[in-house]
Amino acid sequence: MRLVIIGGDAAGMSAASQAKRLDSSADVIVLEQTTDVSYGACGLPYKLPDGQDMEDLRAITVEEFRGKRNIDVRLQHEVERIDPEGHTVFGTSPAGPFELQYDRLVIATGARLSSPPIPGLDDLWGQGAYALKTLQDGRSLKTALRQQPKSVVIVGAGYIGLEAAEGFHQQGLQVTIVEALPEILGFLPEKLRARVSAEAEAKQVPIHLGTRVERLERTSAGKITVHTGAASALETDLVLISTGVRPNSEIAAQAGLKLGANRSIAVDDYLFTSAPDILAAGDCADATHGISNQSVWMPLALRANRAGKLAGGNALGQRRAAPPVMGTAIFPFFDLQIARAGLSAEEAAEAGFDAVSTTIDAPTRARYIPGGGKLAVWLLADKGSHRLLGGAMVGPESAAHRIDTVVATLHAEQTVEQLYAMDLSYQPCFGPSWSPLLTCASQLMKKLK
Amino acid sequence: MRLVIIGGDAAGMSAASQAKRLDSSADVIVLEQTTDVSYGACGLPYKLPDGQDMEDLRAITVEEFRGKRNIDVRLQHEVERIDPEGHTVFGTSPAGPFELQYDRLVIATGARLSSPPIPGLDDLWGQGAYALKTLQDGRSLKTALRQQPKSVVIVGAGYIGLEAAEGFHQQGLQVTIVEALPEILGFLPEKLRARVSAEAEAKQVPIHLGTRVERLERTSAGKITVHTGAASALETDLVLISTGVRPNSEIAAQAGLKLGANRSIAVDDYLFTSAPDILAAGDCADATHGISNQSVWMPLALRANRAGKLAGGNALGQRRAAPPVMGTAIFPFFDLQIARAGLSAEEAAEAGFDAVSTTIDAPTRARYIPGGGKLAVWLLADKGSHRLLGGAMVGPESAAHRIDTVVATLHAEQTVEQLYAMDLSYQPCFGPSWSPLLTCASQLMKKLK
Repeated sequence: MRLVIIGGDAAGMSAASQAKRLDSSADVIVLEQTTDVSYGACGLPYKLPDGQDMEDLRAITVEEFRGKRNIDVRLQHEVERIDPEGHTVFGTSPAGPFELQYDRLVIATGARLSSPPIPGLDDLWGQGAYALKTLQDGRSLKTALRQQPKSVVIVGAGYIGLEAAEGFHQQGLQVTIVEALPEILGFLPEKLRARVSAEAEAKQVPIHLGTRVERLERTSAGKITVHTGAASALETDLVLISTGVRPNSEIAAQAGLKLGANRSIAVDDYLFTSAPDILAAGDCADATHGISNQSVWMPLALRANRAGKLAGGNALGQRRAAPPVMGTAIFPFFDLQIARAGLSAEEAAEAGFDAVSTTIDAPTRARYIPGGGKLAVWLLADKGSHRLLGGAMVGPESAAHRIDTVVATLHAEQTVEQLYAMDLSYQPCFGPSWSPLLTCASQLMKKLK
Repeated sequence: MRLVIIGGDAAGMSAASQAKRLDSSADVIVLEQTTDVSYGACGLPYKLPDGQDMEDLRAITVEEFRGKRNIDVRLQHEVERIDPEGHTVFGTSPAGPFELQYDRLVIATGARLSSPPIPGLDDLWGQGAYALKTLQDGRSLKTALRQQPKSVVIVGAGYIGLEAAEGFHQQGLQVTIVEALPEILGFLPEKLRARVSAEAEAKQVPIHLGTRVERLERTSAGKITVHTGAASALETDLVLISTGVRPNSEIAAQAGLKLGANRSIAVDDYLFTSAPDILAAGDCADATHGISNQSVWMPLALRANRAGKLAGGNALGQRRAAPPVMGTAIFPFFDLQIARAGLSAEEAAEAGFDAVSTTIDAPTRARYIPGGGKLAVWLLADKGSHRLLGGAMVGPESAAHRIDTVVATLHAEQTVEQLYAMDLSYQPCFGPSWSPLLTCASQLMKKLK
């Protein structure tokens, strides 16, 4: 049994490790196009400040995978073509072209930066303009920070852009964010978005909304001019391109595999693609949303790890279904925690739900305990069944962990009334006696009447 | 319609407020034996240090209840007897004896300190020995702290005792805890208890287990000697008696009302007692446990507020069932958060379950993010159905809010496999990619095979 895996990050190495765990005699080969395997890409923004080392993100070395786990990891092996009928992959390595037969194949090619064509950007890559997707990106940016730049313009206000803003700010840079869309974090209801905007303002990080970068230009003084539609251009030392990511699905598409949401590789519940003996897992593949039951593309770490592990097992003959995703996402933005799960109001409408939502503010601690602040909680429910469809929270503490209560409620298909009946925890240091989720559920029940 | 409520704290005032909200013409009379209504008793330990004021715990003043909410609050009115057949209560007030007829009665008499008979204690109450159950207790203790005592012996290592330990420690006192039982927090599995003990040791707070206080004695030097069975007695400036609480159910028992767990007042799902037109809510009444379906006595704030509100409504003709409790409890102990929900191993055995449990340690942040520490997670499941029965956590962060995920899972009657399939949140600042709950569920699944 030869299992070939394309891609040596979270999903790929999880698949490889699980396969060897189940059958130590299986021939497991991982083809990784870079020289890095298994690193914590989610940590990149936190390694920007001085005193933090990008190399800390490396989880397990290639030597460990090769030695202790007996996995044949081949670095700098780029797969260029898959022949599903011939059960063969073709590619190039430093030693020249290679081809490799497989019994089963797991595609775990991940995602890559999706950058709009910005005139002038090509000449600046690695010379003032950077991304923050791969460990190598992180190393390049870290090197640039050693030149003690004073300012950075972040293009794109997604998770990575916002997390990086904090890292740059901590490093002492003047940070400016430019976002082409008319709002940031569009999945959040307005009141919650306003909290994020206010936090950016409080930290003196301007966010230019509805602003598209038209051109980048190196000035004679060694600065970069960021031309937008606005009257005055921005001048900066560094530019971070964080305009989102897209799935590395091209070789799958070329091999005739069916694609799903956002041109990710479509997989069934068992992570099999439309081609025989080929599975896909991680940021290159789609998933089923637990509420809408639709194909979604959500390149997030838990899913990549979980799907990788399952794909490794299923490739070897197990038959375990991957659970649906709930669109759960959390991240900090300076002194705020931002959390969401389930559907946004817009997603619910698109999925055909007639939904009702409400937002409340609740204290994160009992009134008489110093510290804490206001937690904004938003819940969304189906008008007919009262089933909870989604939730979001923004606040100075507890949001990142409280959202899991929403996740559990969503998975268990509970109604708002059932959520309100839950004996959620209370202690004055950790919240008010009625948990903010209960208060929000109570308000939503009134709207559902 | 005259609704009489005995007791003006969380449950009683919630009942009164809800009744007036539903029917502003209802004659709602609250009989409170002290001069304090509606205060945050859970905050008492946090008001011990200098700079914190006990009076901050008062939530809504009696004037507000009387004025804005039009509730007839009568202070220093102690009810001594209930005549269920005559629909009358009898008692005394500063003006002398009183009797009062009711159409419906809500008993919300709460709980009181349950102190074992300790020779010498009677003479020391308020003169070196204190409790921390009522606002008046808090005021007395606060006054004593102004004498700048150097040391305190805490008798009883329950929630209050442990929380107060931190308050005294912060105030600079040498703290010693004496516990009659052979262990603290017996509901926790051993590994989690060990974390709490280690934290006490790290903070130089000795806990003497299996140690019963035999006698208290005032010394000529103005100290108090705490005699235990041990060879050497403890000498201290202050003694805190935190040996637990018991329901104020005597007048209910004398009136012939049925009692439940721990001699609390037995109520049905609608908070009605065994006597016609008499309801009970709050710390004096029992509740149904969501897992064991047994009568339990859990004097906790959310339940008191919730039951009070429901009792006020049901007394006026609504018919809303009180949801079951899940035994959810959280509290901090110095730099640890301690959380539990559902049944302990012992409670599960008593309730007739054949249960399996496991404990894991997981980091509270991704490996490469500074700070955080180890979170110990324990989960308990039914061997046959795999249904989750309980959980507990101890760690430096996140435990207090992560436990609500367990609560939701318990309420929704989910199995360990269903918990493991949940798309729980991940971000490196807030946890590892596999949530500690998922890791624990995974280990428990192996044991259930």
